[in-house]
Amino acid sequence: MRALLFDGKQLQFNPRRDDPQLAPGEAVIRPLLAGICSTDIEICRGYMNHTGVLGHEFVGVVEQVHADCDDKSKKLVGSRVVGSINCVCGRCDLCKRGLSSHCRHRTVLGIAGRDGCFADHFTLPVRNLIGVPDAIENEQAVFVEPLAAACQLLQQLHVEGRPFITVLGDGRLGLLVAQVLTTLNANVRVVGKHPEKLARCDKWGIKHRLLADNTPRADQDIVVDCTGSASGLKLAMQMVRPRGKIVLKTTVVDQAGVDLSPLVINEIELIGSRCGPFPHALSMLAEGRVDVTSLISRRIKIEQGVEALSLARQPDVLKVLLEF
Amino acid sequence: MRALLFDGKQLQFNPRRDDPQLAPGEAVIRPLLAGICSTDIEICRGYMNHTGVLGHEFVGVVEQVHADCDDKSKKLVGSRVVGSINCVCGRCDLCKRGLSSHCRHRTVLGIAGRDGCFADHFTLPVRNLIGVPDAIENEQAVFVEPLAAACQLLQQLHVEGRPFITVLGDGRLGLLVAQVLTTLNANVRVVGKHPEKLARCDKWGIKHRLLADNTPRADQDIVVDCTGSASGLKLAMQMVRPRGKIVLKTTVVDQAGVDLSPLVINEIELIGSRCGPFPHALSMLAEGRVDVTSLISRRIKIEQGVEALSLARQPDVLKVLLEF
Repeated sequence: MRALLFDGKQLQFNPRRDDPQLAPGEAVIRPLLAGICSTDIEICRGYMNHTGVLGHEFVGVVEQVHADCDDKSKKLVGSRVVGSINCVCGRCDLCKRGLSSHCRHRTVLGIAGRDGCFADHFTLPVRNLIGVPDAIENEQAVFVEPLAAACQLLQQLHVEGRPFITVLGDGRLGLLVAQVLTTLNANVRVVGKHPEKLARCDKWGIKHRLLADNTPRADQDIVVDCTGSASGLKLAMQMVRPRGKIVLKTTVVDQAGVDLSPLVINEIELIGSRCGPFPHALSMLAEGRVDVTSLISRRIKIEQGVEALSLARQPDVLKVLLEF
Repeated sequence: MRALLFDGKQLQFNPRRDDPQLAPGEAVIRPLLAGICSTDIEICRGYMNHTGVLGHEFVGVVEQVHADCDDKSKKLVGSRVVGSINCVCGRCDLCKRGLSSHCRHRTVLGIAGRDGCFADHFTLPVRNLIGVPDAIENEQAVFVEPLAAACQLLQQLHVEGRPFITVLGDGRLGLLVAQVLTTLNANVRVVGKHPEKLARCDKWGIKHRLLADNTPRADQDIVVDCTGSASGLKLAMQMVRPRGKIVLKTTVVDQAGVDLSPLVINEIELIGSRCGPFPHALSMLAEGRVDVTSLISRRIKIEQGVEALSLARQPDVLKVLLEF
């Protein structure tokens, strides 16, 4: 099969990768569309030490389920699905206490210990899959994973009053996060570097500002760092008010030494945030509460996957989708 | 007057420092005992760029109040007091919204923009002062400031269930924090490097463990970093469970580059914590709920203040008090 993989040194397209093995409880999925995420780019710089097929954002069709699966699972064959990327054991202390997305023995699609979705076929446990309603197009459904990650903020922030929230970063994730946060009773604005990316906010009625025009005043109740750069946290600490909150939404490999003493002096709360609830994201798409298709910059064939990842690195590019 | 000061380059004892000027609304205080804190040591390494008289932990006697003060304030003269170290404007946005300890124009006793208490006399606003009940000895009252900082945790942590809490660091602050946290419905243990410091926990019925005997298992609900070292946060991230909390209780000047990606991957909450409520600390002392005098390693005259700070740096030393 065709696959896009990172061998530990470089990204390469392989036209003849072996098909994946189907394990008990799992399904083979054929992706219809896949999305390139900054995490994919970071992995090619060494993040998570992942090697193998990349990719964790997809909408696909179930081609086959393992023979040991129950009848309900078998009925999934042929249906359109998205899927949670954390494959968990269900037996460790964390799984048992309701923290299964942090399972101690988990593998993560295209990120840790498991080949990803940038290939003609890949596997996921059947229990990770969720059917996509007909009303949601492939071009929307492929955003469910990052949109769910944005929705995770709604579970982690307990907003009272009408807080001032700054989303730092006008990239793929920042623009999803900003849209999701406007469903709260909050004053949301995006601060970023790219006028043409920020311009999308006008359509959604979201305030925005160029970073160069912004003077940090330690007056924001909440700052969500979606910059994916080491300088993001430093700036967030300058923008947030004392006893305010910073949410770290992105990881960076070569994090410079950031002086964390402002966290203590200003009693700031720093909250790490990762994957989120797929059903919530699906319902936001079904209800038309989030515009994801405006974020699509390009659609590129899997054969040009190496070029697609290069393109996704460009500062003026938002979401690049892979076609199969 | 005698004073212990940092001139930006080195710590020195000055036997003939000018007496402080008494400003409207303020009192002159004569310290009876003062405590040396790790912050004093950090200031001598450049923290906060503070120059002038050091010191912010004291119990003292009010010698004089400014002529413009009301009768109630004038009655303070001659009484024994402790005092909040943040001197605030009362007019900025943060003061007005109940965050006056983070006042945008504050000075901080012996830490920022205001001479400290390691001198025969120093000044503080009258409204910062709190009388010390007769039942509390000077040797206890001098701990009110750091004890209040430990009590701040009770306001910041909202403990439910019976969480496992590790206090990292067996120093001055760690041993106060551990005692305060045992007033919660929690499993508290101290992890530190020094058997003779940890041994104090036996008397208080608090579990403890040598760092060398401890394998981080990502299983603690809460970790409070009181190490005052850059390695503390890194270790805390290995000890805390996913979606757990780390409280940063100490600042360090030369913080090495700590990789913060575990915060995001494990969705950890990092909470900065600084000064705390003096009345709470006084009542804990009055009720005998905290043993502070066991933490006193030495009492040294102000004239030997330079040596006293050197001593306080030694790994086997806990609280060093200055006498006047």
